[in-house]
Amino acid sequence: LSSSSVSAVVLRPRRRMVVKAAAEGINPEIRKTEAKVVDTVVVTELSKPLTPYCRCWRSGTFPLCDGSHVKHNKATGDNVGPLLLKKE
Amino acid sequence: LSSSSVSAVVLRPRRRMVVKAAAEGINPEIRKTEAKVVDTVVVTELSKPLTPYCRCWRSGTFPLCDGSHVKHNKATGDNVGPLLLKKE
Ligand code: FES
Ligand code: FES
Repeated sequence: LSSSSVSAVVLRPRRRMVVKAAAEGINPEIRKTEAKVVDTVVVTELSKPLTPYCRCWRSGTFPLCDGSHVKHNKATGDNVGPLLLKKE
Repeated sequence: LSSSSVSAVVLRPRRRMVVKAAAEGINPEIRKTEAKVVDTVVVTELSKPLTPYCRCWRSGTFPLCDGSHVKHNKATGDNVGPLLLKKE
């Protein structure tokens, strides 16, 4: 064999890709300039008999619940809902 | 040139993979048998001057906050925190 008829081609092996999800945040948008979003409710000042507070981080009226958890649950299969403050 | 000196090797192109995250739920573990996790607090029954309620869905004492939001925020870069119910 002449040397010109011998060729070696190194093929990259088919890589197995493992895509690992990083742990995800749960608040995409609310008050992201704050290091920690904490809200205080003085319960004696509640005006309505029942006031829902958001725990889904999707409400347009955060910290109050505006019902956005319904859309979030439908889109993701999640099961989150508000905390209801009851005056009674 | 003799034919034996010519070789064609077809290399698979380097694939560009785009991994798109689906919208994610925010509650991995709490009461997943319930369609929607809603809790009610009768505010007149609060015993302490200040009671923190969980909004991170990581508390071991849900619906109360046990401080687990700190670990969640560190692990993910998130900025979530509890709702504080203040008695007066
Ligand atoms: S809008 Fe967030 S819990 Fe209802
Ligand atoms: S443990 Fe969830 S907000 Fe503190």
